Amino acid sequence: MDEARLRALMEAVATGATTADDAVKRLKDLPFEDLGFAKLDHHRALRQGIPEVIYGAGKTPAQLVEIVARMKAHGSNVLATRCEPAGIEAVLKAHPEAVHHEAARALTLVTTPVEQRPGFVAVVCAGTSDLPVCEEAVVTCEIQGSRVERVYDVGVAGIHRLLAQRERLQEAIALVVVAGMEGALPSAVAGLVSRPVIAVPTSVGYGANFGGVAALLAMLNSCGTGVSVVNIDNGFGAGMLASMIHRLKYED
Amino acid sequence: MDEARLRALMEAVATGATTADDAVKRLKDLPFEDLGFAKLDHHRALRQGIPEVIYGAGKTPAQLVEIVARMKAHGSNVLATRCEPAGIEAVLKAHPEAVHHEAARALTLVTTPVEQRPGFVAVVCAGTSDLPVCEEAVVTCEIQGSRVERVYDVGVAGIHRLLAQRERLQEAIALVVVAGMEGALPSAVAGLVSRPVIAVPTSVGYGANFGGVAALLAMLNSCGTGVSVVNIDNGFGAGMLASMIHRLKYED
Amino acid sequence: MDEARLRALMEAVATGATTADDAVKRLKDLPFEDLGFAKLDHHRALRQGIPEVIYGAGKTPAQLVEIVARMKAHGSNVLATRCEPAGIEAVLKAHPEAVHHEAARALTLVTTPVEQRPGFVAVVCAGTSDLPVCEEAVVTCEIQGSRVERVYDVGVAGIHRLLAQRERLQEAIALVVVAGMEGALPSAVAGLVSRPVIAVPTSVGYGANFGGVAALLAMLNSCGTGVSVVNIDNGFGAGMLASMIHRLKYED
Amino acid sequence: MDEARLRALMEAVATGATTADDAVKRLKDLPFEDLGFAKLDHHRALRQGIPEVIYGAGKTPAQLVEIVARMKAHGSNVLATRCEPAGIEAVLKAHPEAVHHEAARALTLVTTPVEQRPGFVAVVCAGTSDLPVCEEAVVTCEIQGSRVERVYDVGVAGIHRLLAQRERLQEAIALVVVAGMEGALPSAVAGLVSRPVIAVPTSVGYGANFGGVAALLAMLNSCGTGVSVVNIDNGFGAGMLASMIHRLKYED
Amino acid sequence: MDEARLRALMEAVATGATTADDAVKRLKDLPFEDLGFAKLDHHRALRQGIPEVIYGAGKTPAQLVEIVARMKAHGSNVLATRCEPAGIEAVLKAHPEAVHHEAARALTLVTTPVEQRPGFVAVVCAGTSDLPVCEEAVVTCEIQGSRVERVYDVGVAGIHRLLAQRERLQEAIALVVVAGMEGALPSAVAGLVSRPVIAVPTSVGYGANFGGVAALLAMLNSCGTGVSVVNIDNGFGAGMLASMIHRLKYED
Amino acid sequence: MDEARLRALMEAVATGATTADDAVKRLKDLPFEDLGFAKLDHHRALRQGIPEVIYGAGKTPAQLVEIVARMKAHGSNVLATRCEPAGIEAVLKAHPEAVHHEAARALTLVTTPVEQRPGFVAVVCAGTSDLPVCEEAVVTCEIQGSRVERVYDVGVAGIHRLLAQRERLQEAIALVVVAGMEGALPSAVAGLVSRPVIAVPTSVGYGANFGGVAALLAMLNSCGTGVSVVNIDNGFGAGMLASMIHRLKYED
Amino acid sequence: MDEARLRALMEAVATGATTADDAVKRLKDLPFEDLGFAKLDHHRALRQGIPEVIYGAGKTPAQLVEIVARMKAHGSNVLATRCEPAGIEAVLKAHPEAVHHEAARALTLVTTPVEQRPGFVAVVCAGTSDLPVCEEAVVTCEIQGSRVERVYDVGVAGIHRLLAQRERLQEAIALVVVAGMEGALPSAVAGLVSRPVIAVPTSVGYGANFGGVAALLAMLNSCGTGVSVVNIDNGFGAGMLASMIHRLKYED
Amino acid sequence: MDEARLRALMEAVATGATTADDAVKRLKDLPFEDLGFAKLDHHRALRQGIPEVIYGAGKTPAQLVEIVARMKAHGSNVLATRCEPAGIEAVLKAHPEAVHHEAARALTLVTTPVEQRPGFVAVVCAGTSDLPVCEEAVVTCEIQGSRVERVYDVGVAGIHRLLAQRERLQEAIALVVVAGMEGALPSAVAGLVSRPVIAVPTSVGYGANFGGVAALLAMLNSCGTGVSVVNIDNGFGAGMLASMIHRLKYED
Repeated sequence: MDEARLRALMEAVATGATTADDAVKRLKDLPFEDLGFAKLDHHRALRQGIPEVIYGAGKTPAQLVEIVARMKAHGSNVLATRCEPAGIEAVLKAHPEAVHHEAARALTLVTTPVEQRPGFVAVVCAGTSDLPVCEEAVVTCEIQGSRVERVYDVGVAGIHRLLAQRERLQEAIALVVVAGMEGALPSAVAGLVSRPVIAVPTSVGYGANFGGVAALLAMLNSCGTGVSVVNIDNGFGAGMLASMIHRLKYED
Repeated sequence: MDEARLRALMEAVATGATTADDAVKRLKDLPFEDLGFAKLDHHRALRQGIPEVIYGAGKTPAQLVEIVARMKAHGSNVLATRCEPAGIEAVLKAHPEAVHHEAARALTLVTTPVEQRPGFVAVVCAGTSDLPVCEEAVVTCEIQGSRVERVYDVGVAGIHRLLAQRERLQEAIALVVVAGMEGALPSAVAGLVSRPVIAVPTSVGYGANFGGVAALLAMLNSCGTGVSVVNIDNGFGAGMLASMIHRLKYED
Repeated sequence: MDEARLRALMEAVATGATTADDAVKRLKDLPFEDLGFAKLDHHRALRQGIPEVIYGAGKTPAQLVEIVARMKAHGSNVLATRCEPAGIEAVLKAHPEAVHHEAARALTLVTTPVEQRPGFVAVVCAGTSDLPVCEEAVVTCEIQGSRVERVYDVGVAGIHRLLAQRERLQEAIALVVVAGMEGALPSAVAGLVSRPVIAVPTSVGYGANFGGVAALLAMLNSCGTGVSVVNIDNGFGAGMLASMIHRLKYED
Repeated sequence: MDEARLRALMEAVATGATTADDAVKRLKDLPFEDLGFAKLDHHRALRQGIPEVIYGAGKTPAQLVEIVARMKAHGSNVLATRCEPAGIEAVLKAHPEAVHHEAARALTLVTTPVEQRPGFVAVVCAGTSDLPVCEEAVVTCEIQGSRVERVYDVGVAGIHRLLAQRERLQEAIALVVVAGMEGALPSAVAGLVSRPVIAVPTSVGYGANFGGVAALLAMLNSCGTGVSVVNIDNGFGAGMLASMIHRLKYED
Repeated sequence: MDEARLRALMEAVATGATTADDAVKRLKDLPFEDLGFAKLDHHRALRQGIPEVIYGAGKTPAQLVEIVARMKAHGSNVLATRCEPAGIEAVLKAHPEAVHHEAARALTLVTTPVEQRPGFVAVVCAGTSDLPVCEEAVVTCEIQGSRVERVYDVGVAGIHRLLAQRERLQEAIALVVVAGMEGALPSAVAGLVSRPVIAVPTSVGYGANFGGVAALLAMLNSCGTGVSVVNIDNGFGAGMLASMIHRLKYED
Repeated sequence: MDEARLRALMEAVATGATTADDAVKRLKDLPFEDLGFAKLDHHRALRQGIPEVIYGAGKTPAQLVEIVARMKAHGSNVLATRCEPAGIEAVLKAHPEAVHHEAARALTLVTTPVEQRPGFVAVVCAGTSDLPVCEEAVVTCEIQGSRVERVYDVGVAGIHRLLAQRERLQEAIALVVVAGMEGALPSAVAGLVSRPVIAVPTSVGYGANFGGVAALLAMLNSCGTGVSVVNIDNGFGAGMLASMIHRLKYED
Repeated sequence: MDEARLRALMEAVATGATTADDAVKRLKDLPFEDLGFAKLDHHRALRQGIPEVIYGAGKTPAQLVEIVARMKAHGSNVLATRCEPAGIEAVLKAHPEAVHHEAARALTLVTTPVEQRPGFVAVVCAGTSDLPVCEEAVVTCEIQGSRVERVYDVGVAGIHRLLAQRERLQEAIALVVVAGMEGALPSAVAGLVSRPVIAVPTSVGYGANFGGVAALLAMLNSCGTGVSVVNIDNGFGAGMLASMIHRLKYED
Repeated sequence: MDEARLRALMEAVATGATTADDAVKRLKDLPFEDLGFAKLDHHRALRQGIPEVIYGAGKTPAQLVEIVARMKAHGSNVLATRCEPAGIEAVLKAHPEAVHHEAARALTLVTTPVEQRPGFVAVVCAGTSDLPVCEEAVVTCEIQGSRVERVYDVGVAGIHRLLAQRERLQEAIALVVVAGMEGALPSAVAGLVSRPVIAVPTSVGYGANFGGVAALLAMLNSCGTGVSVVNIDNGFGAGMLASMIHRLKYED
C-alpha cells in the first residue's frame, strides 16, 4: 500500500465512505512492503550514487543482457561483478554504452552520472596476484563517486616500500587492504594510518593457505586499530563499505 | 634523532663543523623512530581523544596499577579491558578517579576530557548473554567522545521488535551489531540502514557453535551491504572502529 | 499501537478530529510491535500449552528466582533448562510449587495445567551417558501435554534389542533419537518407522569425537527417511519440535 | 519365511508331519526378512503415496532406464533426483509418461496417482541461486500428495518482504526453508510461525562459506523454535520430512 | 522367548494344546532378544575369556561398586577402565579380590581364571607419556589370556633402538603401537613385521597436535602394510582387537 | 653385505688373510640392507602369497607396462590398483596373462599360484556406490589366497536384511566393512560377530560428508568391539590386513 | 634518494647553497626506499648468488618471456618455478641459454656463474611421488652454488634402507626432507644427524591426508631436534633456506 | 656390542678361539645399538655443548629431582623446560647449583661449562605476552654457548620501531621470531635480513586465533625468504635449531 493509497483510505474515512472499523481491519493486515519502502530506497540510492548490482557468476549471457536492460530502464547505474567472458561480450553488444573493466572481471553502465566527492579511498596490495580482487573494489568505489588511489606494490616483506607510501596512505578517507598468503598487510597499514582499514583476504596461495583461510584468520586477529574484515576475495563488499564511509564523511 | 638534533647536525654542516661526508654517514644509519614519530602520534592521539589501552587479562594487580600510573603521568586517558576482579580492586584503590564499568569488565580513567561529537553510534544485540561484549564496545566509544545508543533486545527470531527500532538504527553514524548463536542479526540490521555495520560474533552458544565460529562464518557470509567483521568477542575492536568512523565524519 | 488506539485514531479521522494527512503521517511511522502481536502470541501460547523458557546456564540464583516470579505472575507455565544446583535450590525455596527434574537438570512450574493429547513421543537412546539430554527432551515434551515413552537401552551394536522395540517405536507420533559416539542410532530407528525422527547428537565420547561433531556429521549424512538434526546436546530443541509435531497432529 | 510358510510349518507340527524338535531348530534360524516385512512395507508405501527413489548421480542412462522399468512394473511411483542430462533424455525416450522437472534436476513417473491432502507445505528461499534445492523439495512433496506454496523472494536483508508473507507462512503445515550464505532465513521464519521449520543449507556462496558449512552451522545454532536441519543441498530429504509431517496430520 | 519356551510351544502345537493359528500369531510377534541370544553370548564370552567391561569415567563410587557386584554375581570377569581415585578406593574396599592397575587407571576382578594362550601381543611405544594408554591395552589383553610383551622405549627419532627390538617384534601375534606427537611409530614398526599393527594415537603433545589429531591423521595415512587405527587414547579398544586376533589364531 | 660375503670375511679373518682390525672397521660401517634382509623378505613374500603392489594412479601406460614386466621377471605376483583405462589397456596388450578386475579398477598377474586357505573373509557394504572400494579389497584378498564372500546389500537403515546375514557374517575369519554416508555399518556388524572388523570409510556422499570425514569419524568412534579403521577409500589396505589376519590363523 | 643525491644535498648545505632549515625539511620527508637499499641488496644478491625468482603459475608465456628478459638485462640469475608447458616453450625459444629442469617444473638462466661452496645439501624423500617437490628444492639450491646429494629411496616403512644412508646424511650441511602420507621421514632423519632438517610436507596421498595436512601436522609435532617446517609442496622455500644455511657456513 | 667387544670377537676368530661360522651367527643377530652409537653421541653432545633435556610438564617433583641427579652424574648439562613451581622448588633444594629462569619456566644445571661462540642469535617478539616462549628459546640457546640478543618490542603495527632495529637484526647468525595474534612478524623480519628466520607461533590471542592456529598458518604462508616454522609455543625447539645453526657456522 503506497502513500497515495494510504491517503485515499484516510480520506475515505474522513468523508465517511469507509467506516473506522473497516479501516482498522485493512490497516492491521496491510503488507509491509507496500508502504513505499522500495520507492524511497530507490530514490535515495539514485541520489547517493548507489548502483544496482548483479552477481554475474552462473548467469547466462541472455539473463545478464535482460537484467541490465531492466535496470537501465529504471534509470539505475549498473555494476555487474564476476562476469564470464561470454556474458561480457553479450552485454557489450546489446548495451554498447556499458564499460568492461577487464582486470576487475566487471561491467558498469552509468545512466545517471554520480558527482565525485573530495578525498579518496586507497586500495592497497602487495602484488599482481591480488589485482582482480583489488580492481573489483576499485570499480565498486568509482561507480559511486569515490576516487581511488591504487597502492599496489607494498608488502610486509619489503617494509621500506610501504613506509615510502606513508603519507599517501594517511590521506585516504578509508583504505581497502587486500592480501593473500600470510595476510599481514592490513596490520602493517593500520599501524601507519588512523582511518578505517577494510581487510580483504584473498584465496591466493597454496598448501596451508587453505583457499584464503590463513589470510582470513590473520586479519581477524590483527592487532591494528580500525581493522575489520570481509569475506575471502570479496573486493565488491570492501568497495561498498569504503565508499559508504567516504559518502558518510561528506553528506550533510 | 629528533628534529632538534637533525637541525643541529645540518647547522654543523652549514658551519663546517661537520663534513658533508660525515653527515651522509650518520644520516644513512639514523634510527627511524627518532624522527619524532612517537611524539607526533602521542599529540594527535590526545587531540583526537584516543585513549591508551591496556589488555588486562593475565596482568597482575601490581602491573595494572603501575601501567595506569605511568599513562596518567603522560596525561593520557586510559582504557583497561578484560580486567580481573583483583586488578580492578587494586586500580580503584590506587587511582580513586578511575571508573569501573562492571558489565564491560573494564576500567577507565579520564585525565583530559574529550569533547562529545554530534550524532551517535548504535550498539545492537539480541539479549543478555551478549551484554559484556556490547558494553566493552560502549565504553570504548564513550571514552573517545562518541555517544552510544543501546538497542539490546532485537533478534532475527522476533523481527517485529527489530523493525520497531528501524528509525533509531537509521540515524546512527555507525552500528556495532553483536550476536552469538546463528549470527544473523548484522544481516538483518544492514538491510534496514545505509551506514557501516561492524559485526561482532560472540562465543555465546554451545555444541556446533564452536566457540563463536558459527556466528563468525555467518557474518563473513552476510549478504548485507556495508557489513564487516571483527574477531570473536572483540567488542573493543568494534568500538574503536565505530568511534573512528564517527570522528571521521566530524573532523575537518 | 494496539488495536484500541488504532480504532481511536480511525474514529478521530471519521469524526474529523484528526485530518487524513495527520493519520497518514502517524500510520507510516507506527511501531510494528504495537499492533498487538505480542498479546496474541501470548494467548495462543497459553492455549497450546507452550511454556515460557529460561536458559538457566550462567544466570544467578537471584535472577532465576525473579524471572520465574515474573512468568508466574503472567500465568505462564515455566521451563528452566541447564540450571545449576544453587539456582535450583533458590527457585525451589522461593516457589515451592516448582518441580525439579534432576536427571534433566531442569525446573518446571505449571500454572495452567495442559491437557494431554492422545498418542506419544518416543525418546530413544543407547544408554546412560545420554540420559541428561534425553530427559531434557522428556521434560520439554511433558510440560506441553505430550506423553513420552522412554526407550533407553537400544543401540546399533546390539541390533536385536532395537528390533524388539520395533512396534513401540512404530506407534510413536514423533521420535527424538539421542546418540553420542558414532551417532548411528537415528538411521537405524528411521529404518523401522515412518514418522519424523529428530536426531540429537551428544558430546558424549572422547578423542576423535570432537565434542559431538562425529555424531553430528553422521546424523546429517543419515540415509534414513524423515531424519533431521538439531544442535549437539540440544534435548530442549528436539523436545520442542517433537511436541510441536504431536500438537499439529491433534489440533483442528 | 512368509506367513504362508510359517502357517504350513505349524500345521505340519500340529499334524505330526514335523516334530517339535525340528520346528524349534528351523524357527531358531529363520531369516528375519522372510517374515513378510518387505511386502507389508511395499503395500503401505503405495497406500501412503511414498515413491520409490533413485539417486541419479553417477548412474548410466542404461541403468536409469532399467531401474525405472523395474519400479514401474511393481506399480510404484518413481522419483529420480540429481539426474544428468543424458540419463534424463534416455528415460524420457524409454518411458514417455515420465515427467522432467528441469529446475529440480528430477524425473517423476506416476503409476498410481496419489490423492492430494488438504493444506500445504511452504518452500521458502531468498533468491534464484537456491532454486534447484527448493525445486527438489517441491517435486518430492508433490509426488506424495502434498501441495506446495513457493515463497521464493524473502531474505533477512529485506525484512519487510518477509513480513509481507507472514500470513501465508503461518498457514503452512510444515515449512522447508532453504538458504546459503549466512543461513539466517530459517531463524527469521521460525520467529513468525508455530510449525516445523526444516532448514536446508545450500552450498551457494564462496570463500568463508566453505561449501555450505557457514549456513549449516548457523542453522544448527538457530534460536528459533521448531527448527531442525538436514544435510547441505538436501532438498530431497527436506521434502520427504515435510511431506511425512503433512501426511501425519491427516492420516487416521 | 528362550529355547525352553519355544520348545514348549512347539510341543503344545504337536499335542494340539495350541492351534497352529495361535502359534503363528505368537511367533510373528516374538521379541527377538528372547531367542536366547544373550545367554549364548554370555556363555561364549565366559568360555573365551571375554570380560564384562565398565567405562568408569563419570560413574560415582557407589555405582561402580554396585555394577561390579552384579557382574561378579554372574560369574563374569570384570574390567573397569578410566576409573577415578574415589571409585577405585570404593571398589577395592567392597571387593578386596579386585586388582588395581595403577598405570592403566584400571581395575580387574577375575572370577573365572582364563587359560593363557601360546604366543604374545606386543605393546609398543616411545616413552613415558604414552604409558597410561599402553597399560590400558596391556590389562585388556591380559584379562583375556593374552600374554603381553612391553616394548616401551623405541621411537622414530632413535631408529637403532627400534631395530634392536626387531626380532621380538616379529614374533608377536599382533602389535598395539601407541604414539602421540607425530604418530610415526606404527609405520616404522609395520616395516619390520608381517603381523597386524593396531595403531593408537594419543593426545600427548601440544599446539598443532590438536589433542591427538596430528597422530591420528599420520596413522590413517600410514604407508605400512597391515596398519589400522582406533580412536585417540583408546588403549582398551586396541587391546580388545589384539586379543581377539590372538584368540582367533589358537581357537579351533 | 649378504651372508655369503659375511662368511667370506670371517673366514679371511680366521685364515689371517684379513686382520681383526680391518674386519672391525668393515663391520662397523656395513650397510644394513646388505645383511640379506631383502632376499629373505622376497622369499617369504612369495611363500606366503604376498604380491608386489603398484599404485597405478598417475603412472603412464609405459611405466606401468615396464614395472609389471620387471616384477614378472622376479617371479612375483603383481597387483596394480587405481589404474587408469589407458594403462590397463597397455598392460593387457603387453602381458596378455594379466587379468583386469573392472569393478575394482585393478589388474592382477599371477606368476606363482597361491594355495587357497580354509575359511573366508567377508566384504560387506550397503550398496552400489561403495562397490569400487569393496572390489579393491576383494581382489587384494583373493590374490593372496583368501576366499571372499561378498555381502553387498546390508545397511543400518534396513536392519532385517543385515540380521538375515548374521550366520554368514559370523563364520568369516575377518570382515572388511565398507560404508560412506553416516558410516554406521561397522558398528552394527561388530555387534553380530566376534571377529576383527576392518572399517573402510568411503568418500561417497555430499555436503556435510566432507569427502568421507563423516564416515571416518563415525567409525573411529564406534562402540563395537574389534573395530579398527583404515584411510578413506582404502580398500587395498583393508584387504591386505584382512588377508594377513586370515593367513595368521592358518600358518604354523 | 640515493647516496649520490644525499651527498649532493650535504655538500649544498656545506657550501651554503642550501640552508640547514631546507635540508631538515627535505630529510624529514625523504622516501625510505631512495636511500639506496635496492641497489645494495641487488649487489649483495649477485655476490652471494641469490637469483631473482619468478612464480610461474598463472603467468602467460608472453609475461614470462618479458620478465626473464628484464632480469637478464640486469645481469641477474633467474629461477622460474611452477612453470606451465607453454610458458617453458616460449622462454626456451626466446632465451635459448635458459635451461629447463623437467622434473622440477622449473627454468633457470644463469648470467653470472656462481662459485660452488664446499660441502653439500641433502635432499631426501621416500619415493617417486614426491620427486617434483624434491627437484624444485634441488634446482633452487644448485643455482645458488649449493651442491645437492639426492637420497630418494628411504622411508620409515623400510628403516634399514634409511640406516644404510646414515653416513651420507650426517655429512650434509643442511637437509631438505620431503614427505607426503604420514610425514614421518623428517623425524627419522633428524634422529640420525645433528644438522638442520627442513621438513617439506607434500600433498601426495588421498582421503584423510587432506591435501598434505596430515604430513604437515606430523612434521610440526616432530620430536626430532633441529626440525622446522615450510608450507605444503614448498620445495622452493626449503631450497632457499637450505642454501642460505650452506652459504652462512662458508661466508666470512 | 661396543667396539671393544667387536674387536675381541674378531681377535677370537683370528686366533681360532671362535670359528668363522659362530662369528657369522653372532654378527647377524647383533643388536644395532650396541655398536657404540650411544656413547659416541654422548661424547659428541658434551663436546658440542648439547644439554640433556627434560620436558617438565606432568612430572612429579620427585621424578624431576631424580632425573636431574642421574644426568648430573653423567657429567651432562641439564635443561628442564615447562617446569611447575613445586618441581622447581624441589630441584633447587636438592641441586643448589641449578638455576631457575623464571620468565622461561625453565631450570638449568651446568656441569661442563660450554665455550661461547662469536656472534649471536636474535630472539624477536612484539611484546610481553610472548615472553615465556621467547625466554624458553633464550635459555635453550645460552646453555649451548649461543649468546642471545633480545629484540622484544617490535611489531608489524609499529613498523618504525622494527626498522630502527634493522642493523642489529642483520648481524644475527640466526633469528627466532615469536608471534601470536596475526603472526606477521617473521615475514617482516625476513624482509630485512638474509639469515634463517625460525618462526614460532604462540597461543596468545582469543576467538578466531584458535590457540595459535591463526599465527601458525600465517607463518607457513610467509612470503619471506628463509622462514621456517616450529610448533605452537615451541620456544625450546626454535632455540635448539637456532643454536644448531650458530654452532654449524663456527665448527670446523
